[in-house]
Amino acid sequence: MLRLSRFLPSASRRGFDLKESLWSGSLTFQQAVSTSAANLDDDLSGKKFASYTVFKGKAALSIHPILPSFSKLESGGSRVSKNGSVMLTFWPAVGQRKYDYTKKQLFALSPTEVGSLISLGPAESCEFFHDPSMKSSHEGQVKKSLSITPLGSDSGYFVNITVLNNVEKTNDRLSVPVTKAEFAVIRTALSFALPHIMGWDQALTNHHPAPSSSRKPRVERPHPDSEWER
Amino acid sequence: MLRLSRFLPSASRRGFDLKESLWSGSLTFQQAVSTSAANLDDDLSGKKFASYTVFKGKAALSIHPILPSFSKLESGGSRVSKNGSVMLTFWPAVGQRKYDYTKKQLFALSPTEVGSLISLGPAESCEFFHDPSMKSSHEGQVKKSLSITPLGSDSGYFVNITVLNNVEKTNDRLSVPVTKAEFAVIRTALSFALPHIMGWDQALTNHHPAPSSSRKPRVERPHPDSEWER
Amino acid sequence: MLRLSRFLPSASRRGFDLKESLWSGSLTFQQAVSTSAANLDDDLSGKKFASYTVFKGKAALSIHPILPSFSKLESGGSRVSKNGSVMLTFWPAVGQRKYDYTKKQLFALSPTEVGSLISLGPAESCEFFHDPSMKSSHEGQVKKSLSITPLGSDSGYFVNITVLNNVEKTNDRLSVPVTKAEFAVIRTALSFALPHIMGWDQALTNHHPAPSSSRKPRVERPHPDSEWER
Amino acid sequence: MLRLSRFLPSASRRGFDLKESLWSGSLTFQQAVSTSAANLDDDLSGKKFASYTVFKGKAALSIHPILPSFSKLESGGSRVSKNGSVMLTFWPAVGQRKYDYTKKQLFALSPTEVGSLISLGPAESCEFFHDPSMKSSHEGQVKKSLSITPLGSDSGYFVNITVLNNVEKTNDRLSVPVTKAEFAVIRTALSFALPHIMGWDQALTNHHPAPSSSRKPRVERPHPDSEWER
Repeated sequence: MLRLSRFLPSASRRGFDLKESLWSGSLTFQQAVSTSAANLDDDLSGKKFASYTVFKGKAALSIHPILPSFSKLESGGSRVSKNGSVMLTFWPAVGQRKYDYTKKQLFALSPTEVGSLISLGPAESCEFFHDPSMKSSHEGQVKKSLSITPLGSDSGYFVNITVLNNVEKTNDRLSVPVTKAEFAVIRTALSFALPHIMGWDQALTNHHPAPSSSRKPRVERPHPDSEWER
Repeated sequence: MLRLSRFLPSASRRGFDLKESLWSGSLTFQQAVSTSAANLDDDLSGKKFASYTVFKGKAALSIHPILPSFSKLESGGSRVSKNGSVMLTFWPAVGQRKYDYTKKQLFALSPTEVGSLISLGPAESCEFFHDPSMKSSHEGQVKKSLSITPLGSDSGYFVNITVLNNVEKTNDRLSVPVTKAEFAVIRTALSFALPHIMGWDQALTNHHPAPSSSRKPRVERPHPDSEWER
Repeated sequence: MLRLSRFLPSASRRGFDLKESLWSGSLTFQQAVSTSAANLDDDLSGKKFASYTVFKGKAALSIHPILPSFSKLESGGSRVSKNGSVMLTFWPAVGQRKYDYTKKQLFALSPTEVGSLISLGPAESCEFFHDPSMKSSHEGQVKKSLSITPLGSDSGYFVNITVLNNVEKTNDRLSVPVTKAEFAVIRTALSFALPHIMGWDQALTNHHPAPSSSRKPRVERPHPDSEWER
Repeated sequence: MLRLSRFLPSASRRGFDLKESLWSGSLTFQQAVSTSAANLDDDLSGKKFASYTVFKGKAALSIHPILPSFSKLESGGSRVSKNGSVMLTFWPAVGQRKYDYTKKQLFALSPTEVGSLISLGPAESCEFFHDPSMKSSHEGQVKKSLSITPLGSDSGYFVNITVLNNVEKTNDRLSVPVTKAEFAVIRTALSFALPHIMGWDQALTNHHPAPSSSRKPRVERPHPDSEWER
């Protein structure tokens, strides 16, 4: 919490007042940034953070992208070793325009889950289940689910997170109604983010300098269809 | 006004003639540029400005994007401290192809308002209300609204701005019909702009160099699902 | 024509054989590149050219984007002084897989015309009229029109150019059927190109370095809504 | 195979175990990367590789983009000499979560085939035929086809590859069911990739420095409509 406290107004470490932050426009995901920093355990100098946050009566939802990791190949190039994701962070409201950041819940969408979200029809729902301890001895202790269900009349969606902790015997549920306009922002931002969290933007922008005329001649390849070589 | 005058033909500071500008293609939002410059109060060297402008019988509408601001974090990275926006500028016509730039009205769309606009169905409308003095002692003195209403038969939209000034006792209204083709440009440009005014393009292009093979080994993390750590 | 001849096989300056070019994949708009070069009258070193070309029985159609021009502002920044465009080039066929490049016809789509094309419904048509001598003494001597009409059954479009020359008493018409898949490429490429030919990509990627902590303090602005200042 | 073997677990050169790779997230198309490297015969240092892979019961499908090639022009610029593509790689399953990479089949989508795929309606199919030896003496010896057919109820597609080898008397068929969410990822990634494999991103980002005020004056061009000059 030390890491977070420098962002939070000193008088309200648990229930900080949103009013000033909203007005100055400076809240934007500052807390989640520090979390993300802790998670990634990376050199952060030069890194930039951005998110999209909606504040509603009972909870807030903030969304930010996480970049993929690359690992070096023997050839000198590199390849995606771990896909990025889109992180959803929920906080419960603890009063009017007050949210308790210490009770936040996280849900990281994989590329395919992002695909599910951006292709959701106006009357369709989707639900994802995560077990963060999957394939470990703690498997099944905690179950998370994220569901997106239509508000009706093409007016937006409910975004719900449920976290069932069998060890601590808790069952947290946070629900944020998202308007059609807000969902359009999310859909557009996630469609933009998707090729980036998969590393395709980097694979597609290896802009080599134009080959010089003096380049050594290539061997003729009678069948340029590279799909043919094995 | 001194700032603007260098752009305007000297003989027509109020009602400048659009003909020459349109033909040469050089008008494109030069005035709004200077306004934006004044507003942002930033180092402008190297900055580039672009807009999309439609000139109609009774008024003109120009649209240009405004970048988000970033502020530095202790980690060395930075985060969005203020979202960008999409600025709409309206001018009334004061004659054939003459527009009075001094009577311009501005309306800045937030990311969510941009989301509302780009998801608008052919027969749908939307309306936004702004009070530039909100939460100050001047609250309520001036009320702005922007509405977008269908022209009918899937042929485009009316974009209307109303500015009610209770102090000066004025009520200005400007309306610009936008064809389906022009709205397609606006929708495409705003969809493109949206991730940028939210700073997501910058958050998603922190292209680190590929990690070298000699990199210090990482601590094994049994549960790489970063959503799990708090 | 000297400029072009270096690209064309010496034995077929008028009716060059497409077969070899298609097989090697090297034809891609080389001719139009030289035209574009002549038009732009710019320093071309470092410039890159790309197009999308469809070859059909009676004519070929090639499409390539043209960048906007920027002019310098007193502030040190720059603004779009002339929008870019999307250039369509048509050549008639003069035999099986032979096209006569000297009879090419050009049509440059403005941003709004691009908007019209990318928002075209499956059963919709559009038509644009250009008079290259508009507002000069030669106005009306030559009239060009481009029409896009559905092939029927959601299977693509005819792209037709008509050039009526009242001085030379000629009336050229070239028509290229474009499949649904080819039109999807055109729609996607043009949607991608649109913000670029308007200069929005450059206006949206002025990535300033993150402000340093030691930056001089800003004056407090009680109303950050920049739309309000005039 | 030497090239590949360094990626594969030593104990399972033919039927490698996917479990560990999936869990660590490190499989992502490592094999195809080495193939692609062999094919492109290029300097790979600095190159980045990314893909999207779905593992299903009977086969796996991985998709990755391939950049276009540019060749130098006399002007100093360069132009696309060979379009890029989107490579599909299929592997058969040889057990639970085990795939035989040595039996992979490749299919490279051209820009127009990408256009066909991204414009596919929920109930539509498409099929492409490739003869890698087309126009050589081996024409017709091997025939490949890729078909994409709806799973029904708007729930996704089957992606099928058939490779008929008349010399080896083999007929391989691999089929991968792709969910609606997975297809949304593919559609979004391919729509993103399309302008890049055509080189349009590079043609559209030749960002010249803003012209200086001291630039030599241009000759007046009475008709700036560049479509008019031949």
